[in-house]
Amino acid sequence: MIRGRVIGRIWSTKRTDSLPQGALLEVEIDGGSRVIAFDPLGCGDGEEVLITQGSVAAGQFEGIKAPIDALIIGSIDEHT
Amino acid sequence: MIRGRVIGRIWSTKRTDSLPQGALLEVEIDGGSRVIAFDPLGCGDGEEVLITQGSVAAGQFEGIKAPIDALIIGSIDEHT
Amino acid sequence: MIRGRVIGRIWSTKRTDSLPQGALLEVEIDGGSRVIAFDPLGCGDGEEVLITQGSVAAGQFEGIKAPIDALIIGSIDEHT
Amino acid sequence: MIRGRVIGRIWSTKRTDSLPQGALLEVEIDGGSRVIAFDPLGCGDGEEVLITQGSVAAGQFEGIKAPIDALIIGSIDEHT
Amino acid sequence: MIRGRVIGRIWSTKRTDSLPQGALLEVEIDGGSRVIAFDPLGCGDGEEVLITQGSVAAGQFEGIKAPIDALIIGSIDEHT
Repeated sequence: MIRGRVIGRIWSTKRTDSLPQGALLEVEIDGGSRVIAFDPLGCGDGEEVLITQGSVAAGQFEGIKAPIDALIIGSIDEHT
Repeated sequence: MIRGRVIGRIWSTKRTDSLPQGALLEVEIDGGSRVIAFDPLGCGDGEEVLITQGSVAAGQFEGIKAPIDALIIGSIDEHT
Repeated sequence: MIRGRVIGRIWSTKRTDSLPQGALLEVEIDGGSRVIAFDPLGCGDGEEVLITQGSVAAGQFEGIKAPIDALIIGSIDEHT
Repeated sequence: MIRGRVIGRIWSTKRTDSLPQGALLEVEIDGGSRVIAFDPLGCGDGEEVLITQGSVAAGQFEGIKAPIDALIIGSIDEHT
Repeated sequence: MIRGRVIGRIWSTKRTDSLPQGALLEVEIDGGSRVIAFDPLGCGDGEEVLITQGSVAAGQFEGIKAPIDALIIGSIDEHT
Protein backbone atom coordinates (compact mmCIF):
# COMPACT_ATOMS: atom_id res chain seq x y z
CA MET A 1 0.00 0.00 0.00
CA ILE A 2 0.98 3.62 -0.20
CA ARG A 3 0.25 6.49 2.15
CA GLY A 4 -0.63 10.03 1.27
CA ARG A 5 -2.55 13.12 2.24
CA VAL A 6 -5.96 14.09 0.89
CA ILE A 7 -5.71 17.36 -1.04
CA GLY A 8 -9.08 17.61 -2.75
CA ARG A 9 -12.05 15.98 -4.38
CA ILE A 10 -12.85 15.20 -8.01
CA TRP A 11 -16.28 15.62 -9.58
CA SER A 12 -17.20 13.91 -12.81
CA THR A 13 -20.66 14.25 -14.35
CA LYS A 14 -19.70 12.72 -17.71
CA ARG A 15 -18.65 9.27 -16.50
CA THR A 16 -19.04 5.58 -17.24
CA ASP A 17 -22.14 3.99 -15.70
CA SER A 18 -20.01 1.44 -13.91
CA LEU A 19 -18.29 4.07 -11.75
CA PRO A 20 -19.79 3.63 -8.26
CA GLN A 21 -21.39 6.57 -6.48
CA GLY A 22 -19.08 7.90 -3.80
CA ALA A 23 -16.22 10.29 -3.23
CA LEU A 24 -13.18 10.34 -5.49
CA LEU A 25 -10.38 11.99 -3.54
CA GLU A 26 -7.11 13.34 -4.84
CA VAL A 27 -4.25 12.19 -2.66
CA GLU A 28 -0.69 13.45 -2.70
CA ILE A 29 1.85 10.70 -2.14
CA ASP A 30 5.23 11.29 -0.49
CA GLY A 31 7.49 12.44 -3.29
CA GLY A 32 4.82 14.54 -4.92
CA SER A 33 2.95 12.21 -7.26
CA ARG A 34 -0.84 12.18 -7.10
CA VAL A 35 -3.45 9.44 -7.14
CA ILE A 36 -7.25 9.62 -7.35
CA ALA A 37 -8.74 7.10 -4.93
CA PHE A 38 -12.28 5.99 -4.13
CA ASP A 39 -13.14 6.79 -0.51
CA PRO A 40 -15.60 4.57 1.36
CA LEU A 41 -14.62 6.03 4.76
CA GLY A 42 -15.58 9.68 4.53
CA CYS A 43 -12.09 11.16 4.73
CA GLY A 44 -11.52 14.90 4.58
CA ASP A 45 -8.95 17.36 3.33
CA GLY A 46 -5.59 17.01 5.02
CA GLU A 47 -6.32 13.55 6.37
CA GLU A 48 -3.55 10.99 5.98
CA VAL A 49 -4.75 7.82 4.33
CA LEU A 50 -3.69 4.33 3.31
CA ILE A 51 -4.38 3.31 -0.30
CA THR A 52 -4.44 -0.09 -1.96
CA GLN A 53 -4.07 -0.24 -5.75
CA GLY A 54 -4.71 -2.32 -8.83
CA SER A 55 -7.11 -5.24 -9.14
CA VAL A 56 -6.97 -5.62 -5.36
CA ALA A 57 -8.88 -2.33 -5.08
CA ALA A 58 -11.56 -3.37 -7.58
CA GLY A 59 -11.92 -6.73 -5.84
CA GLN A 60 -13.28 -5.01 -2.73
CA PHE A 61 -16.52 -4.10 -4.53
CA GLU A 62 -18.96 -6.99 -4.06
CA GLY A 63 -21.11 -8.08 -6.97
CA ILE A 64 -19.98 -5.41 -9.41
CA LYS A 65 -17.01 -4.88 -11.71
CA ALA A 66 -16.02 -1.45 -10.44
CA PRO A 67 -13.44 0.43 -12.56
CA ILE A 68 -11.59 1.42 -9.40
CA ASP A 69 -7.83 0.84 -9.25
CA ALA A 70 -7.13 2.87 -6.09
CA LEU A 71 -9.09 2.58 -2.85
CA ILE A 72 -8.69 4.20 0.56
CA ILE A 73 -8.69 1.39 3.12
CA GLY A 74 -7.74 3.29 6.24
CA SER A 75 -7.05 6.63 7.83
CA ILE A 76 -3.66 6.71 9.53
CA ASP A 77 -3.69 7.39 13.31
CA GLU A 78 -0.08 7.88 13.89
CA HIS A 79 3.25 6.74 12.52
CA THR A 80 6.25 5.54 14.48
CA MET B 1 -6.81 6.30 -10.80
CA ILE B 2 -4.77 9.00 -12.43
CA ARG B 3 -5.84 12.27 -14.04
CA GLY B 4 -4.50 13.86 -17.15
CA ARG B 5 -5.26 15.99 -20.17
CA VAL B 6 -6.06 14.67 -23.65
CA ILE B 7 -3.39 15.77 -26.10
CA GLY B 8 -4.17 13.75 -29.20
CA ARG B 9 -5.43 10.59 -30.81
CA ILE B 10 -3.66 7.46 -32.02
CA TRP B 11 -4.52 5.62 -35.22
CA SER B 12 -3.43 2.06 -35.80
CA THR B 13 -4.35 0.16 -38.97
CA LYS B 14 -1.95 -2.73 -38.36
CA ARG B 15 -3.39 -4.00 -35.08
CA THR B 16 -4.43 -7.16 -33.28
CA ASP B 17 -7.98 -8.31 -34.04
CA SER B 18 -8.83 -8.22 -30.35
CA LEU B 19 -8.36 -4.44 -30.11
CA PRO B 20 -11.90 -3.00 -29.82
CA GLN B 21 -13.08 -0.34 -32.26
CA GLY B 22 -13.05 3.06 -30.61
CA ALA B 23 -10.84 6.02 -29.89
CA LEU B 24 -7.37 5.61 -28.43
CA LEU B 25 -6.43 8.93 -26.86
CA GLU B 26 -3.02 10.09 -25.76
CA VAL B 27 -3.20 11.64 -22.32
CA GLU B 28 -0.54 13.67 -20.57
CA ILE B 29 -0.34 12.96 -16.85
CA ASP B 30 0.80 15.54 -14.31
CA GLY B 31 4.56 15.28 -14.27
CA GLY B 32 4.80 14.82 -18.01
CA SER B 33 4.47 11.09 -18.60
CA ARG B 34 2.00 9.91 -21.24
CA VAL B 35 -0.54 7.13 -21.40
CA ILE B 36 -2.66 5.87 -24.31
CA ALA B 37 -6.19 5.18 -23.05
CA PHE B 38 -9.32 3.77 -24.64
CA ASP B 39 -12.10 6.35 -24.63
CA PRO B 40 -15.73 5.20 -24.43
CA LEU B 41 -16.99 8.71 -23.59
CA GLY B 42 -16.12 10.79 -26.64
CA CYS B 43 -13.59 13.09 -25.01
CA GLY B 44 -11.80 15.78 -26.98
CA ASP B 45 -8.45 17.52 -27.07
CA GLY B 46 -7.70 19.47 -23.93
CA GLU B 47 -10.33 17.69 -21.86
CA GLU B 48 -9.26 16.59 -18.40
CA VAL B 49 -9.98 12.93 -17.78
CA LEU B 50 -9.86 10.21 -15.14
CA ILE B 51 -8.11 6.96 -16.12
CA THR B 52 -8.18 3.51 -14.54
CA GLN B 53 -5.36 1.10 -15.36
CA GLY B 54 -4.34 -2.52 -15.48
CA SER B 55 -6.63 -5.54 -15.45
CA VAL B 56 -9.33 -3.33 -13.95
CA ALA B 57 -9.54 -1.49 -17.28
CA ALA B 58 -9.80 -4.71 -19.33
CA GLY B 59 -12.45 -6.04 -16.96
CA GLN B 60 -14.86 -3.30 -18.03
CA PHE B 61 -15.26 -4.89 -21.48
CA GLU B 62 -18.12 -7.40 -21.28
CA GLY B 63 -17.79 -10.73 -23.05
CA ILE B 64 -14.42 -10.07 -24.66
CA LYS B 65 -10.80 -10.19 -23.57
CA ALA B 66 -9.85 -6.68 -24.61
CA PRO B 67 -6.11 -5.90 -24.61
CA ILE B 68 -6.82 -2.57 -22.91
CA ASP B 69 -4.84 -1.63 -19.81
CA ALA B 70 -5.89 2.03 -19.61
CA LEU B 71 -9.47 3.27 -19.83
CA ILE B 72 -11.04 6.70 -19.50
CA ILE B 73 -13.85 6.40 -16.94
CA GLY B 74 -14.77 10.04 -16.49
CA SER B 75 -14.28 13.60 -17.59
CA ILE B 76 -13.35 15.85 -14.69
CA ASP B 77 -15.78 18.73 -13.97
CA GLU B 78 -13.79 20.65 -11.49
CA HIS B 79 -11.17 20.10 -8.84
CA THR B 80 -11.14 21.53 -5.33
CA MET C 1 9.87 -8.71 -5.48
CA ILE C 2 11.53 -5.73 -3.90
CA ARG C 3 13.70 -5.46 -0.82
CA GLY C 4 13.69 -2.77 1.79
CA ARG C 5 14.23 -1.94 5.43
CA VAL C 6 11.46 -1.63 8.03
CA ILE C 7 11.31 1.95 9.33
CA GLY C 8 8.09 2.00 11.33
CA ARG C 9 4.56 0.82 11.89
CA ILE C 10 1.21 2.26 10.82
CA TRP C 11 -1.89 2.31 13.02
CA SER C 12 -5.32 2.81 11.56
CA THR C 13 -8.45 2.78 13.72
CA LYS C 14 -10.76 4.16 11.03
CA ARG C 15 -10.39 1.40 8.46
CA THR C 16 -12.37 -0.84 6.15
CA ASP C 17 -13.71 -4.01 7.79
CA SER C 18 -11.95 -6.13 5.20
CA LEU C 19 -8.48 -5.05 6.36
CA PRO C 20 -7.04 -8.10 8.21
CA GLN C 21 -5.78 -7.74 11.76
CA GLY C 22 -2.01 -7.66 11.82
CA ALA C 23 0.94 -5.34 11.52
CA LEU C 24 1.22 -2.81 8.72
CA LEU C 25 4.88 -1.88 8.41
CA GLU C 26 6.39 1.03 6.57
CA VAL C 27 9.35 -0.12 4.50
CA GLU C 28 11.93 2.05 2.79
CA ILE C 29 13.00 0.71 -0.58
CA ASP C 30 16.45 1.30 -2.06
CA GLY C 31 16.22 4.66 -3.78
CA GLY C 32 14.10 6.18 -1.04
CA SER C 33 10.49 5.36 -1.97
CA ARG C 34 8.26 3.87 0.72
CA VAL C 35 5.73 1.08 0.79
CA ILE C 36 3.30 -0.02 3.51
CA ALA C 37 3.28 -3.83 3.68
CA PHE C 38 1.32 -6.35 5.71
CA ASP C 39 3.64 -8.37 7.94
CA PRO C 40 2.73 -11.97 8.83
CA LEU C 41 6.25 -12.72 10.13
CA GLY C 42 6.69 -10.39 13.08
CA CYS C 43 9.46 -8.25 11.65
CA GLY C 44 10.94 -5.36 13.58
CA ASP C 45 12.44 -1.95 12.96
CA GLY C 46 15.61 -2.04 10.91
CA GLU C 47 14.98 -5.56 9.61
CA GLU C 48 15.58 -6.09 5.93
CA VAL C 49 12.61 -7.70 4.22
CA LEU C 50 11.39 -9.10 0.91
CA ILE C 51 8.05 -7.79 -0.37
CA THR C 52 5.69 -9.12 -3.02
CA GLN C 53 3.17 -6.73 -4.56
CA GLY C 54 -0.13 -6.47 -6.39
CA SER C 55 -2.78 -9.16 -6.67
CA VAL C 56 -0.11 -11.73 -5.84
CA ALA C 57 0.00 -10.31 -2.30
CA ALA C 58 -3.79 -10.43 -1.85
CA GLY C 59 -3.88 -13.98 -3.21
CA GLN C 60 -1.92 -15.21 -0.20
CA PHE C 61 -4.91 -14.62 2.11
CA GLU C 62 -7.03 -17.77 2.10
CA GLY C 63 -10.79 -17.48 2.02
CA ILE C 64 -10.97 -13.69 2.18
CA LYS C 65 -10.60 -10.84 -0.28
CA ALA C 66 -7.96 -8.90 1.62
CA PRO C 67 -7.27 -5.35 0.37
CA ILE C 68 -3.53 -5.99 0.67
CA ASP C 69 -1.30 -5.14 -2.30
CA ALA C 70 2.05 -5.45 -0.51
CA LEU C 71 3.07 -8.38 1.69
CA ILE C 72 6.29 -9.25 3.49
CA ILE C 73 7.20 -12.81 2.48
CA GLY C 74 10.65 -13.11 4.00
CA SER C 75 13.30 -11.55 6.15
CA ILE C 76 16.63 -11.33 4.35
CA ASP C 77 19.54 -13.24 5.96
CA GLU C 78 22.36 -11.97 3.90
CA HIS C 79 23.05 -10.73 0.42
CA THR C 80 25.91 -11.73 -1.81
CA MET D 1 -1.16 1.48 -22.98
CA ILE D 2 2.20 2.98 -23.72
CA ARG D 3 3.83 3.88 -27.02
CA GLY D 4 7.42 3.43 -28.02
CA ARG D 5 9.82 2.72 -30.84
CA VAL D 6 11.30 -0.70 -31.66
CA ILE D 7 15.08 -0.62 -31.20
CA GLY D 8 16.03 -4.27 -31.45
CA ARG D 9 15.26 -7.90 -30.87
CA ILE D 10 16.09 -10.26 -28.01
CA TRP D 11 17.16 -13.88 -28.45
CA SER D 12 16.97 -16.36 -25.64
CA THR D 13 17.96 -20.00 -26.08
CA LYS D 14 17.96 -20.84 -22.37
CA ARG D 15 14.34 -20.08 -21.59
CA THR D 16 11.28 -21.47 -19.79
CA ASP D 17 9.22 -23.91 -21.86
CA SER D 18 6.14 -21.78 -21.39
CA LEU D 19 7.60 -18.85 -23.34
CA PRO D 20 5.75 -18.82 -26.69
CA GLN D 21 7.67 -18.93 -29.94
CA GLY D 22 7.77 -15.50 -31.54
CA ALA D 23 9.66 -12.26 -31.60
CA LEU D 24 10.63 -10.47 -28.40
CA LEU D 25 11.29 -6.86 -29.32
CA GLU D 26 13.03 -4.22 -27.28
CA VAL D 27 11.05 -1.00 -27.30
CA GLU D 28 12.19 2.40 -26.12
CA ILE D 29 9.45 4.35 -24.39
CA ASP D 30 9.28 8.16 -24.39
CA GLY D 31 11.48 9.24 -21.52
CA GLY D 32 14.09 6.61 -22.22
CA SER D 33 12.97 3.52 -20.31
CA ARG D 34 12.88 0.20 -22.16
CA VAL D 35 10.44 -2.67 -22.29
CA ILE D 36 10.73 -6.11 -23.92
CA ALA D 37 7.42 -6.93 -25.63
CA PHE D 38 6.11 -9.96 -27.47
CA ASP D 39 5.30 -9.08 -31.09
CA PRO D 40 2.52 -10.94 -32.90
CA LEU D 41 2.41 -8.38 -35.74
CA GLY D 42 5.82 -8.62 -37.36
CA CYS D 43 7.08 -5.14 -36.48
CA GLY D 44 10.51 -3.94 -37.48
CA ASP D 45 13.26 -1.70 -36.22
CA GLY D 46 12.20 1.92 -35.92
CA GLU D 47 8.50 1.14 -36.05
CA GLU D 48 6.34 2.95 -33.52
CA VAL D 49 4.15 0.57 -31.56
CA LEU D 50 1.40 0.42 -28.95
CA ILE D 51 2.00 -1.88 -25.97
CA THR D 52 -0.37 -3.29 -23.38
CA GLN D 53 1.07 -4.54 -20.11
CA GLY D 54 0.50 -6.80 -17.14
CA SER D 55 -2.02 -9.65 -16.89
CA VAL D 56 -3.95 -8.04 -19.74
CA ALA D 57 -1.07 -8.97 -22.07
CA ALA D 58 -0.95 -12.60 -20.88
CA GLY D 59 -4.73 -12.87 -21.21
CA GLN D 60 -4.46 -12.45 -24.98
CA PHE D 61 -2.87 -15.89 -25.34
CA GLU D 62 -5.66 -18.43 -25.74
CA GLY D 63 -5.41 -21.77 -23.97
CA ILE D 64 -1.97 -21.24 -22.47
CA LYS D 65 -0.55 -19.44 -19.47
CA ALA D 66 2.02 -17.37 -21.31
CA PRO D 67 4.61 -15.59 -19.13
CA ILE D 68 4.16 -12.43 -21.20
CA ASP D 69 3.54 -9.13 -19.39
CA ALA D 70 4.06 -6.81 -22.37
CA LEU D 71 2.46 -7.28 -25.80
CA ILE D 72 2.48 -5.20 -28.97
CA ILE D 73 -1.16 -4.69 -29.99
CA GLY D 74 -0.73 -2.18 -32.78
CA SER D 75 1.61 -0.26 -35.00
CA ILE D 76 0.96 3.48 -34.87
CA ASP D 77 -0.02 5.15 -38.17
CA GLU D 78 0.16 8.71 -37.17
CA HIS D 79 -0.33 10.89 -34.13
CA THR D 80 -2.20 14.14 -33.92
CA MET E 1 9.15 -7.79 -19.70
CA ILE E 2 12.29 -6.12 -18.45
CA ARG E 3 15.91 -7.08 -18.85
CA GLY E 4 18.67 -6.85 -16.31
CA ARG E 5 21.88 -8.36 -15.02
CA VAL E 6 22.14 -10.76 -12.08
CA ILE E 7 24.16 -9.17 -9.28
CA GLY E 8 23.62 -11.54 -6.38
CA ARG E 9 21.45 -13.95 -4.48
CA ILE E 10 19.10 -13.48 -1.54
CA TRP E 11 18.77 -15.94 1.36
CA SER E 12 15.78 -15.90 3.64
CA THR E 13 15.39 -18.39 6.49
CA LYS E 14 12.47 -16.58 8.16
CA ARG E 15 9.97 -16.75 5.34
CA THR E 16 6.36 -17.56 4.57
CA ASP E 17 5.66 -21.25 3.99
CA SER E 18 4.20 -20.48 0.58
CA LEU E 19 7.52 -19.22 -0.80
CA PRO E 20 8.73 -21.97 -3.18
CA GLN E 21 12.17 -23.50 -2.74
CA GLY E 22 14.57 -22.13 -5.32
CA ALA E 23 16.95 -19.29 -5.99
CA LEU E 24 15.93 -15.68 -5.43
CA LEU E 25 18.28 -13.55 -7.51
CA GLU E 26 18.85 -9.83 -7.28
CA VAL E 27 18.82 -8.28 -10.72
CA GLU E 28 19.89 -4.78 -11.67
CA ILE E 29 17.69 -3.21 -14.31
CA ASP E 30 18.96 -0.64 -16.81
CA GLY E 31 18.68 2.69 -15.04
CA GLY E 32 19.82 1.27 -11.74
CA SER E 33 16.68 -0.01 -10.02
CA ARG E 34 16.74 -3.52 -8.56
CA VAL E 35 14.31 -6.42 -8.56
CA ILE E 36 14.40 -9.74 -6.71
CA ALA E 37 13.29 -12.49 -9.10
CA PHE E 38 12.68 -16.22 -8.70
CA ASP E 39 15.05 -18.19 -10.95
CA PRO E 40 13.95 -21.56 -12.34
CA LEU E 41 16.78 -21.64 -14.89
CA GLY E 42 19.94 -21.70 -12.80
CA CYS E 43 21.33 -18.33 -13.82
CA GLY E 44 24.57 -17.02 -12.40
CA ASP E 45 26.18 -13.73 -11.45
CA GLY E 46 26.61 -11.36 -14.38
CA GLU E 47 24.16 -13.23 -16.58
CA GLU E 48 21.69 -11.06 -18.50
CA VAL E 49 18.13 -12.18 -17.96
CA LEU E 50 14.55 -11.52 -19.03
CA ILE E 51 12.00 -11.01 -16.23
CA THR E 52 8.21 -11.11 -16.25
CA GLN E 53 6.35 -9.40 -13.43
CA GLY E 54 3.10 -9.25 -11.51
CA SER E 55 0.37 -11.88 -11.46
CA VAL E 56 1.76 -13.24 -14.73
CA ALA E 57 4.83 -14.43 -12.80
CA ALA E 58 2.78 -16.14 -10.07
CA GLY E 59 0.58 -17.78 -12.71
CA GLN E 60 3.55 -19.82 -13.94
CA PHE E 61 3.55 -21.92 -10.76
CA GLU E 62 1.19 -24.86 -11.29
CA GLY E 63 -1.08 -25.95 -8.48
CA ILE E 64 0.16 -23.48 -5.88
CA LYS E 65 -0.42 -19.84 -5.07
CA ALA E 66 3.19 -18.74 -5.10
CA PRO E 67 3.89 -15.26 -3.69
CA ILE E 68 6.19 -14.54 -6.62
CA ASP E 69 5.73 -11.30 -8.57
CA ALA E 70 8.98 -11.44 -10.57
CA LEU E 71 10.22 -14.48 -12.49
CA ILE E 72 13.21 -15.06 -14.74
CA ILE E 73 11.87 -16.57 -18.00
CA GLY E 74 14.98 -16.49 -20.12
CA SER E 75 18.68 -15.80 -20.33
CA ILE E 76 19.51 -13.33 -23.09
CA ASP E 77 21.84 -14.61 -25.85
CA GLU E 78 22.53 -11.44 -27.65
CA HIS E 79 20.86 -8.14 -28.42
CA THR E 80 20.72 -6.41 -31.74
